[in-house]
Amino acid sequence: MQSSKPSLRPLDASKLKFTKTTTPMAVPKPGDPVIATHAQCTDHMITAIWRADYGWEDPELKPYTNFSLPPTASVFHYATECLEGMKMYRGYDGMLRLFRPDANCKRMLASATRISLPAFDPEELEKLIMTFIATDGPKWLPEKGSSLYLRPTMIGSSASLAFQTPKECTLFVIACFMPPPNSPLELRLMASQKDMVRAWPGGFGYAKVGANYGPSLLANCKARGRSYDQVLWLFGEEREVTEAGASNFFIVWRTADGKSQLVTAPLDVKMILDGVTRRSILQLVRERLASGQGHLEALEIVERKFTMDEVADAVDHGRVIEAFAAGTAYFVAPVSAINYQDRDLEITIAKDGYAALIKSWLADIMYGNEHHEWGVVVEEKQLL
Amino acid sequence: MQSSKPSLRPLDASKLKFTKTTTPMAVPKPGDPVIATHAQCTDHMITAIWRADYGWEDPELKPYTNFSLPPTASVFHYATECLEGMKMYRGYDGMLRLFRPDANCKRMLASATRISLPAFDPEELEKLIMTFIATDGPKWLPEKGSSLYLRPTMIGSSASLAFQTPKECTLFVIACFMPPPNSPLELRLMASQKDMVRAWPGGFGYAKVGANYGPSLLANCKARGRSYDQVLWLFGEEREVTEAGASNFFIVWRTADGKSQLVTAPLDVKMILDGVTRRSILQLVRERLASGQGHLEALEIVERKFTMDEVADAVDHGRVIEAFAAGTAYFVAPVSAINYQDRDLEITIAKDGYAALIKSWLADIMYGNEHHEWGVVVEEKQLL
Repeated sequence: MQSSKPSLRPLDASKLKFTKTTTPMAVPKPGDPVIATHAQCTDHMITAIWRADYGWEDPELKPYTNFSLPPTASVFHYATECLEGMKMYRGYDGMLRLFRPDANCKRMLASATRISLPAFDPEELEKLIMTFIATDGPKWLPEKGSSLYLRPTMIGSSASLAFQTPKECTLFVIACFMPPPNSPLELRLMASQKDMVRAWPGGFGYAKVGANYGPSLLANCKARGRSYDQVLWLFGEEREVTEAGASNFFIVWRTADGKSQLVTAPLDVKMILDGVTRRSILQLVRERLASGQGHLEALEIVERKFTMDEVADAVDHGRVIEAFAAGTAYFVAPVSAINYQDRDLEITIAKDGYAALIKSWLADIMYGNEHHEWGVVVEEKQLL
Repeated sequence: MQSSKPSLRPLDASKLKFTKTTTPMAVPKPGDPVIATHAQCTDHMITAIWRADYGWEDPELKPYTNFSLPPTASVFHYATECLEGMKMYRGYDGMLRLFRPDANCKRMLASATRISLPAFDPEELEKLIMTFIATDGPKWLPEKGSSLYLRPTMIGSSASLAFQTPKECTLFVIACFMPPPNSPLELRLMASQKDMVRAWPGGFGYAKVGANYGPSLLANCKARGRSYDQVLWLFGEEREVTEAGASNFFIVWRTADGKSQLVTAPLDVKMILDGVTRRSILQLVRERLASGQGHLEALEIVERKFTMDEVADAVDHGRVIEAFAAGTAYFVAPVSAINYQDRDLEITIAKDGYAALIKSWLADIMYGNEHHEWGVVVEEKQLL
């Protein structure tokens, strides 16, 4: 990576420059149609420019504004871009929190490296995000039990049609309104066909880069056209189950020999995203469901390749207990049906089942009902 | 595709609006360092905006200028982008020509469809390109035997972080200076490792979308770090040979039983780009080398899967006659070495061999030494 040259300036949150907006925007009320556009951001944004011959310039916290980029900018032609998805939560105790921001910032570095964008210290990015939230949080996230979506992004902004590592890039962080995380209440999935593959061993399915998203819109659009919410991505001749849309997929089933398991795809061949929600769910289930809870039995955690035929067989024999998708944007979303080989495999949604319990554990940490190291409190201060 | 709704306005080149630049730029002289930046464009550009609820707005020919895009623009996050690579040539007869522009415009439509950007009539795009060239060509491409690179591009420009088909997109065409097409004089390739795969069946390797480029920069950078020019992309356990960098790969060899063949990867599983240069080479060789020419023997054309082990075996037994990469940007570039399994397979560069002959045929059509239907003359007129 170019930025590992010792002479180049590192990303340094302590050098942050501030410019306050002179045209503050109105905060949309809950239910305002602008929220559904996923385009309403807050008053400010963080930006930081990196140049190959200099390193990182001083980052800026400045009014939210358009970028001015030449038509030759790398990002328009070669998809030199990576992103993160995070949220800030206004707790029921009135505090602002992030959920495991260190994990997102480290993954952003891994994604940047995979897409040949420059390196940075993830802790500096985390500090920038904290300052940004401390600034815009008080005005833009006043309601207890609500959240705003954060999108750290990095793009190749250098002017050149040469197919090369960008010589300039722009890191930015924006905060955007999203519909409430409880929608959709249930997901209906359509299994992908063999002629449409999302990710493959030796590719970049594990990285949060734009190149994983655009190409999957076509299958997504087809699924929606047939009234399904998302694609369930299968891989290879064996129809291995990998991801649901852009989130991780989990199934709770009873094996043929009677074991209760929580099964999800493994990270080893780097085909699926190493989701922060995924990883948190596995750890919580390991810690809190080892001997069951209430009417819910203990679950064995299994990260392994599993096939769509195994899922279909388990549904047909009444061995599927629950299925759900999990990710930052839509939290924990129960799956009610999977279309595979022209039939719908129906799965029961349990109101007080595993997905609901897991979701409540996560929500309690995010919204401060439970004090936990994953719920990082942001100290609010008027910086501007 | 959304734009196939009959009520939406189609892309219509006859509606083109003109705005002349008031700040004309200076044309760089041959050898000017700005040419190596791949960032010097001409005075004008073509743009056309598409909206999901309207269709295509009137296209514009206007001064070359930066785009102003919101940080939430689809292209920054989800790689909703596709492109073409073409050239305009100033013939030795003084005429401006394009080489098979219909093929590029049709492929642009195929790429747009694959990446969920809107459809258009490829003939309208071709008309827009012709008008653009007629306008900027006289000033910017005066020298006989020279060329400018054209980059038709489409990006998702709608403001929304929702993972969805963009509701607004921007089509643009720019013309950019590139170093002379005779460089590099020879290519040294490094075969890719199993943990780095460019494209795969069911993916989008055949489409000219940004998502095929950014993710391959990492391997490209590694190859350059070891003094190779490009990656030779292999696929699968059998180490099937697919592409060289971002161009098609060809080998001329003698089979073990004495046949002379021109071999290149097939298009059938849609892993490689359906190159316009590739297809032109195959057709010309079929037409003109069926019974040899001068000291060069007739070649049998073979489009099939072939493996790197076959190539290594042919090199080791002295059966490789030539190898070359071919694409719009670098034309026909002979390959002198391929690094595979930690050794360099050396290949002779023949000064008056097949690659040189094929290149001369193509150049004669491009630069008007030979009148051919593939060389489309652009009628120059001062439109502004």
